[in-house]
Amino acid sequence: MKNMEKKVLSGKNYIGNSLEATGDTIFHTFNPRINNWNKTDFIEATELEVEKTIQLAHTAFQKMHKIGGPQRASFLLAIVEGMEARKKAILVHYCSETGLSEERCLTELNRTLFQLRSFAELILTESWRNPSIDLANPEAKPPSPDIRKTRIPLGPIVLFGASNFPLAYSTAGGDTAAALASGNAVIVKSHPMHAGTGEVVASAIIEAAIKTGMPEGVFSNLNAKGFEVGKQLVTHPLIKSVGFTGSIRGGTSLIKLANQRKEPIPVFAEMGSVNPVVLLPKMLEEEMDKWSTHISDSIMAGTGQFCTSPGLIFMLKNDTSTTFIQQLETKLMDYESSCMLHPNIYDQFERLKNERSINCALTEKEGALPPNFARQTIAHVSGAKYLQDHSLQEEVFGPFTLVVKFNTVNELLQGISQLNGQLTGTIIGTTEELQENSSVFLNLQNKVGRLVLNGVPTGVTVCPSMHHGGPFPSSSDSQFTAVGIDSILRFTRPVCFQNVPDDLLPLELKNINRCKIQRRVNGLFSGDSFG
Amino acid sequence: MKNMEKKVLSGKNYIGNSLEATGDTIFHTFNPRINNWNKTDFIEATELEVEKTIQLAHTAFQKMHKIGGPQRASFLLAIVEGMEARKKAILVHYCSETGLSEERCLTELNRTLFQLRSFAELILTESWRNPSIDLANPEAKPPSPDIRKTRIPLGPIVLFGASNFPLAYSTAGGDTAAALASGNAVIVKSHPMHAGTGEVVASAIIEAAIKTGMPEGVFSNLNAKGFEVGKQLVTHPLIKSVGFTGSIRGGTSLIKLANQRKEPIPVFAEMGSVNPVVLLPKMLEEEMDKWSTHISDSIMAGTGQFCTSPGLIFMLKNDTSTTFIQQLETKLMDYESSCMLHPNIYDQFERLKNERSINCALTEKEGALPPNFARQTIAHVSGAKYLQDHSLQEEVFGPFTLVVKFNTVNELLQGISQLNGQLTGTIIGTTEELQENSSVFLNLQNKVGRLVLNGVPTGVTVCPSMHHGGPFPSSSDSQFTAVGIDSILRFTRPVCFQNVPDDLLPLELKNINRCKIQRRVNGLFSGDSFG
Repeated sequence: MKNMEKKVLSGKNYIGNSLEATGDTIFHTFNPRINNWNKTDFIEATELEVEKTIQLAHTAFQKMHKIGGPQRASFLLAIVEGMEARKKAILVHYCSETGLSEERCLTELNRTLFQLRSFAELILTESWRNPSIDLANPEAKPPSPDIRKTRIPLGPIVLFGASNFPLAYSTAGGDTAAALASGNAVIVKSHPMHAGTGEVVASAIIEAAIKTGMPEGVFSNLNAKGFEVGKQLVTHPLIKSVGFTGSIRGGTSLIKLANQRKEPIPVFAEMGSVNPVVLLPKMLEEEMDKWSTHISDSIMAGTGQFCTSPGLIFMLKNDTSTTFIQQLETKLMDYESSCMLHPNIYDQFERLKNERSINCALTEKEGALPPNFARQTIAHVSGAKYLQDHSLQEEVFGPFTLVVKFNTVNELLQGISQLNGQLTGTIIGTTEELQENSSVFLNLQNKVGRLVLNGVPTGVTVCPSMHHGGPFPSSSDSQFTAVGIDSILRFTRPVCFQNVPDDLLPLELKNINRCKIQRRVNGLFSGDSFG
Repeated sequence: MKNMEKKVLSGKNYIGNSLEATGDTIFHTFNPRINNWNKTDFIEATELEVEKTIQLAHTAFQKMHKIGGPQRASFLLAIVEGMEARKKAILVHYCSETGLSEERCLTELNRTLFQLRSFAELILTESWRNPSIDLANPEAKPPSPDIRKTRIPLGPIVLFGASNFPLAYSTAGGDTAAALASGNAVIVKSHPMHAGTGEVVASAIIEAAIKTGMPEGVFSNLNAKGFEVGKQLVTHPLIKSVGFTGSIRGGTSLIKLANQRKEPIPVFAEMGSVNPVVLLPKMLEEEMDKWSTHISDSIMAGTGQFCTSPGLIFMLKNDTSTTFIQQLETKLMDYESSCMLHPNIYDQFERLKNERSINCALTEKEGALPPNFARQTIAHVSGAKYLQDHSLQEEVFGPFTLVVKFNTVNELLQGISQLNGQLTGTIIGTTEELQENSSVFLNLQNKVGRLVLNGVPTGVTVCPSMHHGGPFPSSSDSQFTAVGIDSILRFTRPVCFQNVPDDLLPLELKNINRCKIQRRVNGLFSGDSFG
C-alpha cells in the first residue's frame, strides 16, 4: 500500500494492494476546458502485470466464500468513507479530466456514495439471493429430495470505466459496488480519459479492503490507453464476467471476444441509445412552454453526454408541432454551450453532425466558442425520409436531437416499430391522448427498458424499481439492470443444493432462519424456521 | 384446423391453426427397436411456410398483450386435457419413434402434464413478475418520480425439440409451457426423430388454443430434417429468443447464428454435461453395496441418454476404490442392455467409445445384442493421464462412465478445477469426510448448477427450488433454469414505468393490489394497496 497517501498521483496500477508500473507505454489525461494535457504520466499495465492481477483476483475470489454479508457491507461503507476523505482530490482530478463542473462532480459523487450505501444495506441480510427451499417429500411419487436454491458470485469480474461517468459508472461505480457486494473479485480497467480520478478512487477502495480484512486481489485498478489490456482481461480463462458502459462499437468488440472464448462469458454492456420522445399534439397545445423547457434542459444535461439523452423526437406534422419546434429551438439556442469530455468526443460529435447534415436540415448554436465546446443542434427530417433511412436513428453523442415529423399516426407507429432497442422511451400526451394511442404505448414498451410518461428520460433515479437496460443495442442483455439494487443479480447465478446437510448449507438456506428473511419454502413465502 | 381429428398422422406443419405442407423434402422417423423406418411421410416446411409462420407468431404476440394470466392458464390446462385425450396416440408414436418403453413414456407424459399445470397455477396471479413499486417522493433530493417495474414477454420464441425427451423437453415441454405462460408466441421446430409424437402433441396445443380464444399463431409446429429451417427461424428479425436442448455442437451453432444477427437475441441452450461424481473412501467402505447399486442404476437410466447421466467418476486410488469398481462393473454388466433413441445416436456412441479406448481401458457388456442396443461401458484412466488430456472429460452420450483414480486429494482437486461447466456435480461421503473436504464442495460448487450430496444426479425434481443450468457448456446461460417455475424468467425481461397513470399500468402495478400478491413497495415486501 505504498504511496497511497501521496497527494500527487503515481500514474501506476493497483495490482492488488501494490502500486506497480514496469511498463513503458505512457499516456496522459486531457483537460478539455483549457485544451491541454494534464501532467501525470500514466503507465499502461504490462502483459505480466495483467496476468499477475488476474491470478490475485482468482485467489481472492476463492477466499471471498468465507467472508459474510456484514463484512462485505463494512468494506463498501469503508469505501464511502475513503472517498469522502478524498473529496478534494476527486474534485480536482474529475474536473481537470472531464471539463465537467464541480457541481456535476459533487452530484455524481453523492450518487456513487448512495449506490455503495444501498448495496451495503442490501447485503446485511441474504434476502437478495432469493433463497428457495423445497423440503424432502418421501410420500411424493417419485419421492422428492430436499432441494434448496440460492445465488452465488460468478468469479473474478472485469469492469470497464465509462468516459461519461468517472465516478458513478467507473472505479467505485454501480458495477463495482454490485460485483463486490455479491462476493466477486473485481478488476477495473480504468478509463484512460480520467485515469487520475480512477487512481484516487482506487486508493480509497484498496485502503478500505485492507481496513476491513478483504483478501488481497479483491480489487485491482489497471491503466491502459489501448485495447490490448482489455483484450487480455476479457479473454483470460479465469475471468468469469465483464461489465462495460460505452459505445456500441466498444461494447460489441468485447462481446465478440467474450463469445469467442472456449468458455464464453456474460458481458453486461450498456451501449448506445437515442431515447425517443413521442410528443402528442394536444398536450403540446396545452403545455407548450413547459415541455419546450423540460426537453431543452434534458438535451443539454451533461452536454448531451448522458446515456439517456433525448436524441430523437417523434411528432405529428401540424401547426402546433411547427410552433413547438420553433420554441424548442429558441430555448435551446439560448443556452450557453458547454465543454465536451475530450477532443476525441468533440471531434466525433462534429463528424456525426456533418453526416446527418447530408439528409437533414440542421439548426446549430452560432457564434465563437472555445475549443471542445459543443454547438447544440436540432436536426429536422420528414417522416417519409426517416422511415427510408435506418441510419438516421443512430446516436450522435452530445447535445443533438433529430426531430421527425410524421404525416399520420400510422407513420409514427411505423417509426416506433423500426426503432432499435432503447434504454428509454418517452411519451408526452394528455390522459385522453394516451388512452387513444394505446398502440403507441404498447409498441414503444417492446422497444425500451424504461417507459416515461410526461417526463424526460434524463435523470435515472437510483431505486429498487429502476430498470436501466433495454433491448440490443442499448444493452447487451435486456434481462438485467445496470442501476438500482437489482443490478446485483448480474454478477451472480443460481445454484441448487440437493440433500446437503444443514451444517454445509450457506446461512440463508439453513433450517433456522437466522437472517429472519422471507424465503420461498415449498413454493410459498415464509419467515419460518424448521427442521 | 382440418385433419386434426384424423387418427393417422398428416406429416404436415402446423402453421398457426392450419396443417400445411407444400414442400417436397420428405423424411421419416425410425423405430430403433425393430431397426426400421416408420411409414408416415413428414414434409419439411418451405422457406415461404417458415416466413408465414413467423408473421403469424408476430401478430399473435402483439395480441397476447390483451390476454390475462387466468386465460393463459386455461390455455395450458386445455393442453393438458388434449394430451390426456391423445394418450394412446402419444404412446404409440413415442415408443415407435424412440425405442423407449411405454413405462418411460407414461412417466415423461406425467411430468410434462405436471409442468403445464404448475405454470397454469403460477400465472393465476401476477406474482411471478416480481412487481416492484417506488412511489414518487417530491421531498427527496432530487425529487424522485413514481417508478414501477414488472416483467414482460420477449416476443415470438423459437423452441427446438430435444431428441431424448420427446414430451418433457419438446413440443409441449417445459420451454413451451414457460414461454406460453409468460405471454409469448411459440414456434416449435419439431425434432425429426420424433416428428409423429410432435404432431400429435401439436394438435392438442392447437385445439386448446382455439378452445380458449388464443390468437392464431400463438403456437406453430414445423417439421424439418436439415438445418435450414432452424437457421431461417433463428436469424429472422421478428424472432426474439431461442430455446434448445441437445448437443454442444448444435447449441453452439445456434448461439453463433443468434450472435451474428443485427440484433443478437438470447439463446437458452442446454447442452452437454458429464455430471461428475466424487466418491470419497470412507463412505464407500461403509455403504459400498448401496452406492454401487445406485450409481449403476443412474448410469443405465434412460439408456444413459439423460442430460444428468453420470459420465465421470472421481475417486482416490486405494483398495476400497478397486473393490468398489469391481462391484460397480459386476452390477452394471448384469443389466440387460437397452435400445438407444436412433441409429445415429448409437453410431455416435460407438465412435466416441472407440476414441476413448485409445487412452482408457474399457470394460463393456458382452454377448450378442439386437441392433441399436448400447453395450454399457466403464472406462478407466489414471489421474495423471486424465489431467493431461482435457478431451477425456467430454461427453459420451449413452450408458458410459469414465472412472478416474487420483493418487491424492490435491490431484482430485486439480481434476475438479479443470472441469468444464456442468449441470450437476455429486459428492458421496460421510459427514466427517464432507467436512474434511470442504474445498471439494466449494470447488465443485463453482463448476455446477446443482450440487448433489449422497445421491445420484439423474432424476431432476420439478420444484421451485430446482436449478437446471450450469456454467458453459452445460448451458449457454447459467443464470437461468430450464426446469421448475423459475424457468418462466427466461423468455421475459424487466421493464419499468415512470410516471404512468394507474389506468395505463398493468394489473400487478396498479395502486389497488387486486391480485392480492406480495409486491416490493419502496423496497419492502407488502400486500398493501395505496393511492
